[in-house]
Amino acid sequence: MALCACGVDIHAHIIPFDFPAYAGGASPAGWPSMAPAQDCHHRSVMIDGKNYRTVSDTSWSASLRLADFAEMGLQLQAISPMPELLSYWLSPSAAAQLVRYLNEQIATMIGESQGQLIGLGAVPLQDLDLALTELRYMKEKLGLRGVEIGSNINGLVIGDPHWFPFFQACVSLDLPVFVHALRPAGMDRLVGPAALQQVLAYPTDVGLAAASVITGNLLSKLPGLRIAFSHGGGSLAMLLPRLQQATSVFPALKDTVRVPPAEQARQMFFDTLVFDAATLRHLVQSFGASQLMIGTDYPFNFHDHQPVERIRAAGFEEAVVEQLVHANARRFLGL
Amino acid sequence: MALCACGVDIHAHIIPFDFPAYAGGASPAGWPSMAPAQDCHHRSVMIDGKNYRTVSDTSWSASLRLADFAEMGLQLQAISPMPELLSYWLSPSAAAQLVRYLNEQIATMIGESQGQLIGLGAVPLQDLDLALTELRYMKEKLGLRGVEIGSNINGLVIGDPHWFPFFQACVSLDLPVFVHALRPAGMDRLVGPAALQQVLAYPTDVGLAAASVITGNLLSKLPGLRIAFSHGGGSLAMLLPRLQQATSVFPALKDTVRVPPAEQARQMFFDTLVFDAATLRHLVQSFGASQLMIGTDYPFNFHDHQPVERIRAAGFEEAVVEQLVHANARRFLGL
Repeated sequence: MALCACGVDIHAHIIPFDFPAYAGGASPAGWPSMAPAQDCHHRSVMIDGKNYRTVSDTSWSASLRLADFAEMGLQLQAISPMPELLSYWLSPSAAAQLVRYLNEQIATMIGESQGQLIGLGAVPLQDLDLALTELRYMKEKLGLRGVEIGSNINGLVIGDPHWFPFFQACVSLDLPVFVHALRPAGMDRLVGPAALQQVLAYPTDVGLAAASVITGNLLSKLPGLRIAFSHGGGSLAMLLPRLQQATSVFPALKDTVRVPPAEQARQMFFDTLVFDAATLRHLVQSFGASQLMIGTDYPFNFHDHQPVERIRAAGFEEAVVEQLVHANARRFLGL
Repeated sequence: MALCACGVDIHAHIIPFDFPAYAGGASPAGWPSMAPAQDCHHRSVMIDGKNYRTVSDTSWSASLRLADFAEMGLQLQAISPMPELLSYWLSPSAAAQLVRYLNEQIATMIGESQGQLIGLGAVPLQDLDLALTELRYMKEKLGLRGVEIGSNINGLVIGDPHWFPFFQACVSLDLPVFVHALRPAGMDRLVGPAALQQVLAYPTDVGLAAASVITGNLLSKLPGLRIAFSHGGGSLAMLLPRLQQATSVFPALKDTVRVPPAEQARQMFFDTLVFDAATLRHLVQSFGASQLMIGTDYPFNFHDHQPVERIRAAGFEEAVVEQLVHANARRFLGL
């Protein structure tokens, strides 16, 4: 059992008990629904007639979720949609409907949580105007505290200048951004079962997304942006020293990337979801003790059951433990 | 200046002074040629009418190359073709011609090196029979000591079972395999100048290639295979703990990957080309002090000028320094 229950988890997902029918006729391709599964504690997310994932009732029940907090050492959890539900591939109007419903479900769970859940909503980034409308709505009407986005939106990586107005709006509204791997690059390099998408291609894509934020100079343009990356930033820690060195070798890079990449990385946030003490220590060395926060991927099968104990076991001094366990996340979330 | 000149570099490239005309009529698309550049010390590799890269005379001159050894702290260097010359996209017969010429050029440079260069040749992997023929030829007729391959061959990653007969032949012939990033995944996730292909997508692709060797169980099937990965294994060090954890979570992975990934990684070799002491220490922790060897990417612009000093500066104990500087490379190369 964890010694304290003061952890703040910024990477946890929700799936609603059910989805509404599409308002506007026959459901478009990609519109999700829920179906009964093996027992009354599980349901399956159905997309285009296929079982995308069977999930437990902790996905939609605030009280069941809170019941797991003591064992995980958590006091607070930021909840965001299961990434596949971000639905960037739906038409803008269909996606706007779906993410509004998701954001309302998140708001409902927060209302049932006695302050122990906070919300990172979704926005339909396939249409920037609709996305900005939903961003304001989720903050002002629903009380959500931040936004979850994919590492790419229909293949366009988040460091691309196209997304600048969105990030500008996040700063204006004081909403932190949590970047989660989604529909990743590298799928054609996997040898083995389908789970390798999550296992190998997710960290690949999130690492490239974080690198694109650096080479796109996003934080130079928006120093007030609070942006966090899932899965410990994925491959970024291995890309970063090479990128840093490259800026002193290639004139085109030196001219483009004006703030050293290693310094830019220390302005970004990352979760601790790496399952290994030595790797976690390396991330603290690479990104700084002030930039790492608990991420669990709760409640999915591949989640970290003991995030606080794992940080304690890595041998940091107590001040660093407190940063990773709760202080950095509170700063990221603006609490 | 380096204290010793005992380093063994396993990652260095050659480009010939010139290429022959294609024997068989008009040159096919992708057939390289050389053109004069800004001065008599440089020439440009021309592919399909474009300047692929302008390179210095150290690319083809053994004596100029050896003259740089003292400052780099090297005693021995394994030379392999510039990866783009692997030419997997040519027809099998054109590729067979081209790589035979490259292998002969490597043999010539070795002959001029007083034993300070050894050769890692190329084979036309787009045709497995031709590749096995060239593999035998380069060893038996040309005296090369190993083979360089891409991280993927026309998009098919090296851990795919298709390549098993090739690796089997490498073991039979006692030839180590050096895997270099090539035509990488992740290109559509880059924001910035063209150099980011080398800087970010190369380590991405080589990391996925190394992971495919693990999930494809290549070393379980061929425990005698000596296989090394460029750029410190690229992103592998960040993928590995997640892959390790995943084998205890996903039954399909547990059934497929029978030897723990962390253990498999410690049977593979990696170069030290990561440009950062903390990252190098992390690689030693992740892969073992017995698995890392100097890699420089000499003589290209983005090469490591002081590989031995860099290892010394990382603060390892002397026995580890000796492993990284020369002993592991000698074991890998079968010296």
